[in-house]
Amino acid sequence: LTIKKELPEINIKIDACFLSNPYATDLFMDRFKTDVIDTGLIREVLEFYPSQNNIISKTLSKTIDVPEDNIFIGNGATEIIQAIFHNFVERKVIINIPTFSPYYEFVREDTEVIFHQLKKEDNFCLDVESFCRRAKESGVDTAVIINPNNPDGGYIKNSDIAYICNELGDIPNLIIDESFIHFTYEDSTYDFSSSEQLVKKYDNVIIIKSMSKDFGIAGIRAGYCVMDKQKVETLLKNGYLWNVNGLTEFFFNLCSEEKFMLEYEKVRVKYIKYTNEFIKQLKAIEKIKVYPSKANFVLVELPEQIKSQTFVKDLLIDSGIYFRSCDDKKGLEGNFVRIASRDREQNDVIVREISKYFGDVDE
Amino acid sequence: LTIKKELPEINIKIDACFLSNPYATDLFMDRFKTDVIDTGLIREVLEFYPSQNNIISKTLSKTIDVPEDNIFIGNGATEIIQAIFHNFVERKVIINIPTFSPYYEFVREDTEVIFHQLKKEDNFCLDVESFCRRAKESGVDTAVIINPNNPDGGYIKNSDIAYICNELGDIPNLIIDESFIHFTYEDSTYDFSSSEQLVKKYDNVIIIKSMSKDFGIAGIRAGYCVMDKQKVETLLKNGYLWNVNGLTEFFFNLCSEEKFMLEYEKVRVKYIKYTNEFIKQLKAIEKIKVYPSKANFVLVELPEQIKSQTFVKDLLIDSGIYFRSCDDKKGLEGNFVRIASRDREQNDVIVREISKYFGDVDE
Repeated sequence: LTIKKELPEINIKIDACFLSNPYATDLFMDRFKTDVIDTGLIREVLEFYPSQNNIISKTLSKTIDVPEDNIFIGNGATEIIQAIFHNFVERKVIINIPTFSPYYEFVREDTEVIFHQLKKEDNFCLDVESFCRRAKESGVDTAVIINPNNPDGGYIKNSDIAYICNELGDIPNLIIDESFIHFTYEDSTYDFSSSEQLVKKYDNVIIIKSMSKDFGIAGIRAGYCVMDKQKVETLLKNGYLWNVNGLTEFFFNLCSEEKFMLEYEKVRVKYIKYTNEFIKQLKAIEKIKVYPSKANFVLVELPEQIKSQTFVKDLLIDSGIYFRSCDDKKGLEGNFVRIASRDREQNDVIVREISKYFGDVDE
Repeated sequence: LTIKKELPEINIKIDACFLSNPYATDLFMDRFKTDVIDTGLIREVLEFYPSQNNIISKTLSKTIDVPEDNIFIGNGATEIIQAIFHNFVERKVIINIPTFSPYYEFVREDTEVIFHQLKKEDNFCLDVESFCRRAKESGVDTAVIINPNNPDGGYIKNSDIAYICNELGDIPNLIIDESFIHFTYEDSTYDFSSSEQLVKKYDNVIIIKSMSKDFGIAGIRAGYCVMDKQKVETLLKNGYLWNVNGLTEFFFNLCSEEKFMLEYEKVRVKYIKYTNEFIKQLKAIEKIKVYPSKANFVLVELPEQIKSQTFVKDLLIDSGIYFRSCDDKKGLEGNFVRIASRDREQNDVIVREISKYFGDVDE
């Protein structure tokens, strides 16, 4: 939206920066229309105060099978990251790079950040052993894992998460950001595997979850955090009273409904399948290197002579497709862009236009 | 909403706890329908990220004639109170009581609160001289003024605000909460007088403004703060990136539109006039004492033998009207309830039912 305002002359036909499942947005919009607009409930939703944090936690508790005392509702994951970093992270934090920048931008002035470089030659895959060793040697109080990671989509398997939890059981905060976990799977059932239940076993585990991506509702602002109940209590003790809005509450109510979640499951799997097709097609384009991803985006390395800014500008002007240049990503040297999977039709256009750009197709 | 969920068997016909201008809600809902629903813009509003804090500040800057660098956009006033108390309030704060409880509940553990009692015999009117003297003698770093105050509606005149600013020019934070200022006026033009412009003269002044009450949109979560630009910078440096939602942004865009604000001004004045009629009628009920208010509610003292909880329960069960019992209000001893002004028809019902309760009317 900001970009559209700043460059009104440019028509973005496909926003391939934007990381969300458009089929889930369709599903939500349908229910929003029938349940909120057509019924006239919208007035109540916008006029009155939403429920307080702990009431919404109670609703979500059943959906994710975690006790309500372990849940903190957030106005999007960014609010939660801020809350954790300003309240619980102390002297030193270890963070893999490249990654989602608020994780080091939101640190307090007195917190030192240890940047753990993910290696390009390892396809940005996390070596859990070296990560845990470095965390322990550096004496951090907080470790951050994003699973799958942004901007590369690298996935950390269940067994590796278990290893990390065991190795880092003694540090006060082990943050696992699962904002893209719904796009992952370990076998042909396409089931995803959240680490939320680990909170019952490890009291230092903090799971941060955005709902913007998987449910396609970034404009509503909805996220949650699963953590030790002492931490939830600390946050609610002097703040976060009405930190989400009426639509967030409606959304979390929907998530507690079996029918909605069954329909969501269908669009989740459908989108994963389309995304897999999309990644396969991108990989077939010779001139670019597509890094392995289990998220709804891929990190793409451009040929040496093509700067990512130039590529982004060219595709935007020529084809109306907007990609995320990764120039500003700390720990990522080279010509990289991040390409989001959109709906099937838009994905086809993206593949065709990139191919055309590199002269791979005849016109 | 929470109460409706917890007591589903009780039908609240009139929520006279709820402090908002229902005519402003009507106005907003009309524009929401024509601009967002009918146009289909709603999908964009809910699907994509809203603009970041500083972009929305730019929009609001023109509306309130304050430089954008001095504006911090908040997810409702409560988020702003939390931000100020966790980031700028240091050792000691002075707060008048009775008042809006987050002002002392959100303090950090290391902050001492000096409670300055507003006197019942003075109609809870603030004696600015004694307040300033106490603030200086106590060596506070922060003073909080709510104008008009909640739960009594006591108004502090322009000249008294000027006096306070002069007297307390040396303390780091002088918070003036103007969440109900749109319901006040000093003469027959009904113009309200915000202290926002004082930020240009005094760098310690912090104006906190909820938009929930005057615009009747609590469910959206919208508020802002006008303060020294260093303070705005500090908050935006490591947080508050996407702290409001797409509807908040739509709302602030509306506020930058002259036509909308002219229509708003009409419903603002209309509601003040109806509220004045309402207060006059309540004052005519012999058995209760109505304290002077310039807000959209009044503090009412019940006869000695009637407990406020009993009164609230009776009116809720018998008449479906819900009042705010003030039992839990620190600094308020006695049988008090707070009664909100709703629309003209509902206000008439409220007056009639209270009169009936005290046997003032024949049935």
